[in-house]
Amino acid sequence: MTLNARGYAALTSASPLGLFHFVRRDPRPDDVVIEILYCGICHSDLHNVRNDWGYSKYPMVPGHEIVGRVLKTGANVTKFKINDAVGVGCLVDACQTCKHCQKGDEQFCLKQPTYSYGSLDRHDEQLTQGGFSDVIVVSEDFVLRIPEGLELSHVAPLLCAGITAWSPLKRANIKQGSQVAVVGLGGLGHMAIKLAKGLGAEVTLITRSEKKAVESKELKVDHVVVSTNKKQMSTLRNKFDIVIDTVPYAHDVNPFVATLSAGGSMVLVGYFGPLDPPLNTAPLIFGQRSFEGSLIGGINATQEMLDFCADHQITADVEVIKIQDVNTAFDRMLKSDVKYRFVIDLQTLSVELN
Amino acid sequence: MTLNARGYAALTSASPLGLFHFVRRDPRPDDVVIEILYCGICHSDLHNVRNDWGYSKYPMVPGHEIVGRVLKTGANVTKFKINDAVGVGCLVDACQTCKHCQKGDEQFCLKQPTYSYGSLDRHDEQLTQGGFSDVIVVSEDFVLRIPEGLELSHVAPLLCAGITAWSPLKRANIKQGSQVAVVGLGGLGHMAIKLAKGLGAEVTLITRSEKKAVESKELKVDHVVVSTNKKQMSTLRNKFDIVIDTVPYAHDVNPFVATLSAGGSMVLVGYFGPLDPPLNTAPLIFGQRSFEGSLIGGINATQEMLDFCADHQITADVEVIKIQDVNTAFDRMLKSDVKYRFVIDLQTLSVELN
Repeated sequence: MTLNARGYAALTSASPLGLFHFVRRDPRPDDVVIEILYCGICHSDLHNVRNDWGYSKYPMVPGHEIVGRVLKTGANVTKFKINDAVGVGCLVDACQTCKHCQKGDEQFCLKQPTYSYGSLDRHDEQLTQGGFSDVIVVSEDFVLRIPEGLELSHVAPLLCAGITAWSPLKRANIKQGSQVAVVGLGGLGHMAIKLAKGLGAEVTLITRSEKKAVESKELKVDHVVVSTNKKQMSTLRNKFDIVIDTVPYAHDVNPFVATLSAGGSMVLVGYFGPLDPPLNTAPLIFGQRSFEGSLIGGINATQEMLDFCADHQITADVEVIKIQDVNTAFDRMLKSDVKYRFVIDLQTLSVELN
Repeated sequence: MTLNARGYAALTSASPLGLFHFVRRDPRPDDVVIEILYCGICHSDLHNVRNDWGYSKYPMVPGHEIVGRVLKTGANVTKFKINDAVGVGCLVDACQTCKHCQKGDEQFCLKQPTYSYGSLDRHDEQLTQGGFSDVIVVSEDFVLRIPEGLELSHVAPLLCAGITAWSPLKRANIKQGSQVAVVGLGGLGHMAIKLAKGLGAEVTLITRSEKKAVESKELKVDHVVVSTNKKQMSTLRNKFDIVIDTVPYAHDVNPFVATLSAGGSMVLVGYFGPLDPPLNTAPLIFGQRSFEGSLIGGINATQEMLDFCADHQITADVEVIKIQDVNTAFDRMLKSDVKYRFVIDLQTLSVELN
């Protein structure tokens, strides 16, 4: 059989996304064929489409917050059956034997993980294509179970934003009574708030926007501090076990480091680049603080997060859009004009002519 | 009884150290009176004497790498008896009830730890004075046992340099087969090498000095890389579980971050100030790496380190000096002209007139 797929692709770093016809691989024995129902839009989709990190390959069908239903399973598939609700995140394959894979950190596979899009498949060397499309074929080891009882369109962002927030919270052993700060209220920030609350932490949102400070009340955050208010910021000194900083541009991280308790960690997940103004090491040394980065999470951790979300009825706040509006959504994302994640309804692809 | 003490003190931030007569407190019931035999010289002694950090109090008798013998014990002292070999590090008191003290991290006492010198004693509010003197009075809870079989003059630097290197190694769970890099070969660096080797790690020294690269062979380090040699540095990418950076001045940390394995930690213990050039966050995020500071260690951890050193016959490489040569030693330290720590023989005080 030939698996004809439709999606929205960028043909170059300068072109908008447009309708694209392509062929998915013939399912291998361990593959699951998934009808994609929803796909979230992540900031990194925009970075990749525009080749901001310098390694993009075209044509590119972006999308790695994928939720759908199983259409077909390969002969050796044991974990899934037809019609199961499933998810696919950033990872679709890895060597599964190196020290990082063995620890469940497939994102750090020493032989390079295969990403949902923009990677060369490690078996057939074809360019992988992501979730802004109607169907995808993924090895069952990289397919997630979506637990019952969650609204699928709201689940999609968990596959990247959710696990990105979950990993540092779990590494820091956040639990009942922990003190958590989240800097920035967007797709990542609102998931970090919900997950930290779910884990029992007392959560403070730090935002530079008075408007977002007001809006955040819907998220039942415990405290809100406006970062430009020095008096408010001074009340946070030595308070937090972890600060998750989701701000996607260069900014002064030193005032946030100062809010960490001794032994605490500040975790950057949003901004990639040189720190300007520079990080001061004295508060790191005198308070044994750590300044860290974090990148999504492995497959087992992602499943753990999804199961936790089902237990705690946690999903993302989303705005569901038609795929025809994806370029407008990119523009609105750059203005933070979304509460808090765009999710594409892939059924809208069917209005396009084949 | 009045406990007359002699030491070497700075009277101002600009004055050299000179002979100073002062009175130690009358021993309290939990106090141990210690005849000081040896005291190491730490870089921070020089910073404190010169008020580099802005909070120095004078007159100041520096010194927090103290080794001696018990002269007398208070009525309630149970852990020590007369003539025991004992040590005192940076900490001589803390609240012992806050969350950090309860965890054994007295250095982060929420009510401020009392330091060996330059602090106000939390009971009598007198300025504490350090180990460049002949006698000291310390609560038994902050006195360390020196295990048998170690040469006391070589033990002194363990009380600060030793525990400073030990804490991050233990936090990172360094053990047989771990990959450790040490940046900079001085008092801290040579202790980090010895302790990491003792823990079973494979250790790489990174130094910018060809001369130190050669000298380091005496330390049985596994590999030596000269940091200015880009080709050598490129062989270290993604290698280390931990990098302990002991360099005491601003320097480019990014090439060292790149040597960390995914999930690894770079720990700064030497340089206090803004990073120049700036830290790039992308390698932190893409490799889930952490950039940390570390400050000495608590009392239990210090005792654990001393016991480990006895088991593994680890002590510092030292140059023992007369106290009359302490100002010259400060000057030589600034030029890294010591292998690898100066230790003052306090018996040399007795040639001074009373």
